[in-house]
Amino acid sequence: MSTRPALSQLGLSAGKKARLYRILHEHGVRNGTAIFLPYDHGLEHGPRDFCGYPGSGDPRHVLRLAVEGGFNGIAVQIGLARKFYWEYAGEVPLVLKLNGRTDIPAPADPVSPVTATVEEAVRLGADAVGYTLYVGTPGQERDFAQYLRVRQDAERLGMPLIVWAYPRGAAVEARGGRDSLYAVDYAARAASELGADMIKVNFPRPGQQEGVPEAYRREISPQEAITAVARSAGRSLLLVSGGGRAGDAAMLEKAAHSMEAGATGFIFGRNVFQRGQSESLRLVTQLKEILAKYPSGAA
Amino acid sequence: MSTRPALSQLGLSAGKKARLYRILHEHGVRNGTAIFLPYDHGLEHGPRDFCGYPGSGDPRHVLRLAVEGGFNGIAVQIGLARKFYWEYAGEVPLVLKLNGRTDIPAPADPVSPVTATVEEAVRLGADAVGYTLYVGTPGQERDFAQYLRVRQDAERLGMPLIVWAYPRGAAVEARGGRDSLYAVDYAARAASELGADMIKVNFPRPGQQEGVPEAYRREISPQEAITAVARSAGRSLLLVSGGGRAGDAAMLEKAAHSMEAGATGFIFGRNVFQRGQSESLRLVTQLKEILAKYPSGAA
Amino acid sequence: MSTRPALSQLGLSAGKKARLYRILHEHGVRNGTAIFLPYDHGLEHGPRDFCGYPGSGDPRHVLRLAVEGGFNGIAVQIGLARKFYWEYAGEVPLVLKLNGRTDIPAPADPVSPVTATVEEAVRLGADAVGYTLYVGTPGQERDFAQYLRVRQDAERLGMPLIVWAYPRGAAVEARGGRDSLYAVDYAARAASELGADMIKVNFPRPGQQEGVPEAYRREISPQEAITAVARSAGRSLLLVSGGGRAGDAAMLEKAAHSMEAGATGFIFGRNVFQRGQSESLRLVTQLKEILAKYPSGAA
Amino acid sequence: MSTRPALSQLGLSAGKKARLYRILHEHGVRNGTAIFLPYDHGLEHGPRDFCGYPGSGDPRHVLRLAVEGGFNGIAVQIGLARKFYWEYAGEVPLVLKLNGRTDIPAPADPVSPVTATVEEAVRLGADAVGYTLYVGTPGQERDFAQYLRVRQDAERLGMPLIVWAYPRGAAVEARGGRDSLYAVDYAARAASELGADMIKVNFPRPGQQEGVPEAYRREISPQEAITAVARSAGRSLLLVSGGGRAGDAAMLEKAAHSMEAGATGFIFGRNVFQRGQSESLRLVTQLKEILAKYPSGAA
Amino acid sequence: MSTRPALSQLGLSAGKKARLYRILHEHGVRNGTAIFLPYDHGLEHGPRDFCGYPGSGDPRHVLRLAVEGGFNGIAVQIGLARKFYWEYAGEVPLVLKLNGRTDIPAPADPVSPVTATVEEAVRLGADAVGYTLYVGTPGQERDFAQYLRVRQDAERLGMPLIVWAYPRGAAVEARGGRDSLYAVDYAARAASELGADMIKVNFPRPGQQEGVPEAYRREISPQEAITAVARSAGRSLLLVSGGGRAGDAAMLEKAAHSMEAGATGFIFGRNVFQRGQSESLRLVTQLKEILAKYPSGAA
Repeated sequence: MSTRPALSQLGLSAGKKARLYRILHEHGVRNGTAIFLPYDHGLEHGPRDFCGYPGSGDPRHVLRLAVEGGFNGIAVQIGLARKFYWEYAGEVPLVLKLNGRTDIPAPADPVSPVTATVEEAVRLGADAVGYTLYVGTPGQERDFAQYLRVRQDAERLGMPLIVWAYPRGAAVEARGGRDSLYAVDYAARAASELGADMIKVNFPRPGQQEGVPEAYRREISPQEAITAVARSAGRSLLLVSGGGRAGDAAMLEKAAHSMEAGATGFIFGRNVFQRGQSESLRLVTQLKEILAKYPSGAA
Repeated sequence: MSTRPALSQLGLSAGKKARLYRILHEHGVRNGTAIFLPYDHGLEHGPRDFCGYPGSGDPRHVLRLAVEGGFNGIAVQIGLARKFYWEYAGEVPLVLKLNGRTDIPAPADPVSPVTATVEEAVRLGADAVGYTLYVGTPGQERDFAQYLRVRQDAERLGMPLIVWAYPRGAAVEARGGRDSLYAVDYAARAASELGADMIKVNFPRPGQQEGVPEAYRREISPQEAITAVARSAGRSLLLVSGGGRAGDAAMLEKAAHSMEAGATGFIFGRNVFQRGQSESLRLVTQLKEILAKYPSGAA
Repeated sequence: MSTRPALSQLGLSAGKKARLYRILHEHGVRNGTAIFLPYDHGLEHGPRDFCGYPGSGDPRHVLRLAVEGGFNGIAVQIGLARKFYWEYAGEVPLVLKLNGRTDIPAPADPVSPVTATVEEAVRLGADAVGYTLYVGTPGQERDFAQYLRVRQDAERLGMPLIVWAYPRGAAVEARGGRDSLYAVDYAARAASELGADMIKVNFPRPGQQEGVPEAYRREISPQEAITAVARSAGRSLLLVSGGGRAGDAAMLEKAAHSMEAGATGFIFGRNVFQRGQSESLRLVTQLKEILAKYPSGAA
Repeated sequence: MSTRPALSQLGLSAGKKARLYRILHEHGVRNGTAIFLPYDHGLEHGPRDFCGYPGSGDPRHVLRLAVEGGFNGIAVQIGLARKFYWEYAGEVPLVLKLNGRTDIPAPADPVSPVTATVEEAVRLGADAVGYTLYVGTPGQERDFAQYLRVRQDAERLGMPLIVWAYPRGAAVEARGGRDSLYAVDYAARAASELGADMIKVNFPRPGQQEGVPEAYRREISPQEAITAVARSAGRSLLLVSGGGRAGDAAMLEKAAHSMEAGATGFIFGRNVFQRGQSESLRLVTQLKEILAKYPSGAA
Repeated sequence: MSTRPALSQLGLSAGKKARLYRILHEHGVRNGTAIFLPYDHGLEHGPRDFCGYPGSGDPRHVLRLAVEGGFNGIAVQIGLARKFYWEYAGEVPLVLKLNGRTDIPAPADPVSPVTATVEEAVRLGADAVGYTLYVGTPGQERDFAQYLRVRQDAERLGMPLIVWAYPRGAAVEARGGRDSLYAVDYAARAASELGADMIKVNFPRPGQQEGVPEAYRREISPQEAITAVARSAGRSLLLVSGGGRAGDAAMLEKAAHSMEAGATGFIFGRNVFQRGQSESLRLVTQLKEILAKYPSGAA
């Protein structure tokens, strides 16, 4: 059963509320739910993610897909925002990713360095900003330090802050891995305690139990798992990620579980742009049918 | 014939364009036109403007009118924005008025002092800011000084700037008065030269010719007059004010002339809230019928 | 009928709400109403206000009166706050007055200069700050400029802002005078539009109609008058001033009218400290009996 | 025998005194003692601390427990403060934790990174801030650097500073461990020397003597141990932590020892929320009965 | 009877208390009283004040007099402080005057412009700073503005602030004049409300009653008058000025009245340096005999 909080219950400033209202009630299904299109793979993974998927490497193509597919927002890095978003400014909400990194060096203590500021997001007309927070790595101290500034700027400017809450690092791998329920649950809670307005997580795999704390070592269904995560997110709205390209049936099932758990919606990248245009739109339609079943109370 | 410029022709930053797109294409008639509801009379004139019009003094009532009437924006001072807008945040675009004054002292060199900042407008989720610029008074130097700061902040934060371009002062009264075509035309052009994104003017009275320069001393029709003003506004979008409560037929005629001249729309306060709710909505409907005939090209 | 808004409806930040909650629900009658003791007469009028009233000139005596009388707050200038409040810190809420002036020079364009800052109020543990805004004087431009800074600091630090809304100046005197309903009503609305959290006004005298606008030129009862003012204050809580020492019966009647109109309470100085201690406390008891009849909804 | 210093003896600024007075004399037992509810386990340990204890993961539930249980304050991270505290603003004092970390990476030189600022605490209406200082780790240099800033901001804004004084690191483990009297005593004194207004320590285990300096290698009773720690805290008020869930009788005995030693009170988290609501409230009642026996002198 | 407050009752920061302790308890009579030597006449009146008094124009001579006479402090402008005080640094406390003006232009709205800063006073090792505040002039707004900064710097740096509280201006002259009890009493209270640590006033002339408010129009003895002023100063320590050169007997009587009223001491310039050295020292001895009768309670 959905326990998704209404916007008016979240202690939001007028600016955060106005921008979230626009995202959640004036785009997409317009019922308080959302489906976002993240498109920062070119920095995070390199152009290899676009190989074999015609158009997927062209930001203009993907932006049009976001507009035509009626997405609630597209998340990009500052470069694409500046060079491509102006053309569609206002037609689809912009989520400016404020940090990012290439995946080539693989340090033991990764931090995703800041690539843009909240003020730039304001200047571009963005309706939210995104920050990747690595939970569980030795880089935590530097990560929290730069996150603090982003969070405060976002408060000051009334900008909703979406945290990509990513468990990472050797200690995480030793305790069930980044997709274990333990790790995802902890990441969601940490982001919530640190003031995220929305939290992006991967759908947890509760079966990954090797090395996890006692409390997570039992039979846990996917529905129970994502429900626990939504509860840990609390009044931070939950977005569930599609991760890598996956089978449609499994994906739709996870989507339904997520909404049933009280999630606000989805953030699907490769599952969307690594398809032909019509196939993408068909998937989006299916996802929206799920979202339509979970309207928020009036904001 | 409409010569209204498309958003893409205005040299706007992405942020200004995104916010104007939201105002002009996601609210009201959604065709690039606009009707705004200004509601700062409580400061500018005092509560006397509300006497005899039940509900008109209650900001919540007027905000609901703006939402239900499908206005493209409501313009208010910071106090009302902070205490009332949060409840409707995002449902109707907010235009934060950044200066204002009471009308009790009547100095020879009036300047409308700053009451809020562009950053506060951002924090509140506003889609535009408003500034009253008095054209023709001895206070010009102080006025331009504070306007400069507002304009620069608006550029930096991607916030559209609407200038209330008001001819004022003894010198203006000596040259045809504040509503003469000479004065309105000059005010529109001055605001355009000073970087307004939108300009609010009163509909000019070309018959007021006593003391005006040679060029304005001839037979000029209302249509010619407002067309001249729209031309002076250039790529600053033109909004025509309703002024005090007036006869409907005359008002609708002026509205039609304005749109024909290339205006973007109207900004009607007392003509709207000094009526019963249903009468207000009927007037808005009539105005929207006019707007619907003047769609912009694609933004 | 009381239409006083609940704290949760005011769009307050957590800090403003916490501090107002403390003032309104943890002191005095503890039902959302308030009686404040202002004590800045030594600066505003000079020690002559204390002559003949033993103890009234001693801040320690008056602070003890505020504590023992169970006031919701005492309003003083920075000097008294620094030298006397520490002894009673936390026992009665502190309202730090942030501007003030002596009454000796009587300029045509008075502005009450800033004497302390919001940050100092925070440092002293104050629960609110006070600012005297003169409505209707030619000094408006300078007044608004310094008020802007106070208001923004108060927002930033979560500090409730009480505006002493005082009509003043020759133009006001020419339109019914400072206590006319026109003037008081305008002052209340102006303070509300400019973002006051609470507004202190004098009880209006609706009979003073010489020179006032049309709308105020009719038979208006005291109850109607104060109800109009409360409506103009909107979501800014209304405090009614006792003014100079007056007859008790008349004063209690005005107090009852005020609460019936939706006021939050009273701010009574000379009427309190220009009495013997026991007589003061008896008056406070009578005022509290009135307040007790007008509880707020749950905050 | 209690040697707890009165507020007026602590050299506090008016703001710190006002806020501590509110905490110690207007909440809880109202006699100068305190029981705090810390609730940052979601960040420090992850949601596993909530597993099996229904409601314990829901900040709203725990806040209600703090209000209904009559706690003197609840300590949370910025995210929970922003999203949940506004609803109860002022009803229970807020202690904003200003740093925190997840427990997944276990570096040799841990520092708890800053997650919020004193100014944010002011903005939220907090009555105190909390900072975790690790005593004995190689990270000391970075820790002191960020602590310095927190302490100075707290002075400037009149905000009481509670230091979570935690002995940590290999060197500490080699000298009796984090709970040895040596370690706890040193941590209390270090926090006192560095300007803490209150200090949170774990109840020391004087029997852990392996590797401790000579002075601590003798028969020391629990009462003697906590008395020594209170003496080391000096004019920094002492709070004793409950640590992990423990047996009630032992816990109450430690509580009594603490108060006898001159402590100001307790800070109990898991012992409180890892119970059913009624069992929690019963424990709180028992603790308050102890506090009631140790009133402060008048503040 | 002396009601002079002890240092510990004044709500002083440690720095202000330490510096005042040095002034009041380690110099002069060392019993909490003081006699200051002001020496800024060269700026305020010009060298004419020194004519006919050999040595009086030589700062070195006067500084030596201050040291040898065992004064509690010497008040000078920045120029003399920089060029002469270093030689006697620490031997007599330095009071740096922070503003001053020549008496040649006589504007209707005088403000004494700032000539040095509190930070410079710290750099010079001063134990207090002095500021001349004109009470009652139309220049009040500018005066308060620059005073605010001085007061805040003095708070921040723990520097005692002595206010030369001078009634001035046409409105004052119309109400009994600058030495009337009304004017002096108001000035003392205003300085106290604005946060002076010490206040310098002229001994009032209660007989000057023309135009003063009702409360001051009665038979008032000199003792009653200065007692009223001391009461208005409250917890701001009172210094009584000698004014121009006067008869010794009258002066000593005023001094005795002042101490009896609760003053802290004297500030005597021309009465001291407009004499031969030995005569000066004899007068100082007489004044100290009076001071010796009025010890403070322990600080």
